Amino acid sequence: MPINTSPDAPDFDLSGPTPVFVLVRPQMGENIGGAARAMWNFGLDRMRIVDPRDGWPSQKAIAMASGAGRLLDEAGMFDTVPDALADCDYVFATTARMRDITKPVMSPERAMEHARAIIANGGKVGVMFGPERAGLENEDVIHANALITVPINPQFPSLNLAQCVLLTAYEWRRQTADIVPEVVEMAGTDWAGHIEVEKMGDHYEETLEKAGFFYPEAKAASMKLNLRNLWSRMPMTKMDVQMMHGMMRQMKRWKERG
Amino acid sequence: MPINTSPDAPDFDLSGPTPVFVLVRPQMGENIGGAARAMWNFGLDRMRIVDPRDGWPSQKAIAMASGAGRLLDEAGMFDTVPDALADCDYVFATTARMRDITKPVMSPERAMEHARAIIANGGKVGVMFGPERAGLENEDVIHANALITVPINPQFPSLNLAQCVLLTAYEWRRQTADIVPEVVEMAGTDWAGHIEVEKMGDHYEETLEKAGFFYPEAKAASMKLNLRNLWSRMPMTKMDVQMMHGMMRQMKRWKERG
Repeated sequence: MPINTSPDAPDFDLSGPTPVFVLVRPQMGENIGGAARAMWNFGLDRMRIVDPRDGWPSQKAIAMASGAGRLLDEAGMFDTVPDALADCDYVFATTARMRDITKPVMSPERAMEHARAIIANGGKVGVMFGPERAGLENEDVIHANALITVPINPQFPSLNLAQCVLLTAYEWRRQTADIVPEVVEMAGTDWAGHIEVEKMGDHYEETLEKAGFFYPEAKAASMKLNLRNLWSRMPMTKMDVQMMHGMMRQMKRWKERG
Repeated sequence: MPINTSPDAPDFDLSGPTPVFVLVRPQMGENIGGAARAMWNFGLDRMRIVDPRDGWPSQKAIAMASGAGRLLDEAGMFDTVPDALADCDYVFATTARMRDITKPVMSPERAMEHARAIIANGGKVGVMFGPERAGLENEDVIHANALITVPINPQFPSLNLAQCVLLTAYEWRRQTADIVPEVVEMAGTDWAGHIEVEKMGDHYEETLEKAGFFYPEAKAASMKLNLRNLWSRMPMTKMDVQMMHGMMRQMKRWKERG
């Protein structure tokens, strides 16, 4: 049976520990709200904020967060980066640029894979995101164990704060959920069984034979083979097969009407 | 030698064919501009637009797109979905909800992996994105070969148009680029060789011996072993090793000063 992976499916596990996302000196309330939405879109809800430029609480953040406002209510407020990271066992810093410090640089994918492993072993993981305009300073980055750099177009590296949070949260979700890469929505039907497709093939072959379709005689055998191959190649549902039968029956009625 | 994967690195190949992103009946110009930015962030630049609500060109789209304005200048404008998809060999439709039609449903990852394969074989791929409020209609979706559904939090499925474009473009980039999952920025230095770490260990052991660190005598051997193990476990650069030598030399001078 096909597995349901639609948004309505219960395979999105929101229990269990997740990384803490730490917004360092964010400037605009709207972006804090946008970051909260991006986190919650992928089931992350632990936000910390270091020294927001426009103070706290922020009405603009609340307005922007809408359905993710709980993250702002529960967000931890800190004066400094070390305070915000004190209980973390492993810390990532997201940076867009080269840094003149020696540090591992990971893709978002590898970083969240690593985060999953640390958290599975009982560790706490923090991910720092810098202020909108300038990003994290070296003084912030030295507190991180590793960097995350998004593989972005060097001609247009313009990710904003919420987008960077979104991609990181998406990768966390990818690394920790059992995402089924491909299913087929069955819309209330099921695949046709082999015998059903065979019988449909018989129906078509018999009727087309009467209609004089397999002509000239010398080509009839290969035409029949090609037709059978066409049916078996098509991923048909029981409903499709019924419809195919109905079409052919109707063509016969039409002919019989004269 | 470590490989440079920073945004400045030349490993971002912008040549070669890419999927066409088709915005179907987009409502707000800002979102068309945001979609253009999201595409170009990951090196995609082929946009088509079907029947935009507020007409075309859109000043709001241009203002929002800023550095990605070229995509809007070059965007194809179409009246209907079939017109926009006419030259495509394979079409994806991004949908957030269950659909009552039978169709393969892929994760963004699998979908872009599939797109890569089709394009590598000379095919043209289109990806449809629906209007902001309601998403694609079934009448649009039937023109697609497969659906893309982002594995989003069912309690908060609030991705906007530009975010959906961003995640799909990111996956295209992930599937088609040689992204090195992890490197270390070396900041002008290189890893310390084994012999350098050994000699540093000798320096520390000798000096600490004189300083009476390995006490009591019965524990000295295991203390030395632990210290050697500490050094070998640390990923130290040549610069780190020099600094460690310098620290110890300075402690000796301090002591000798009396």
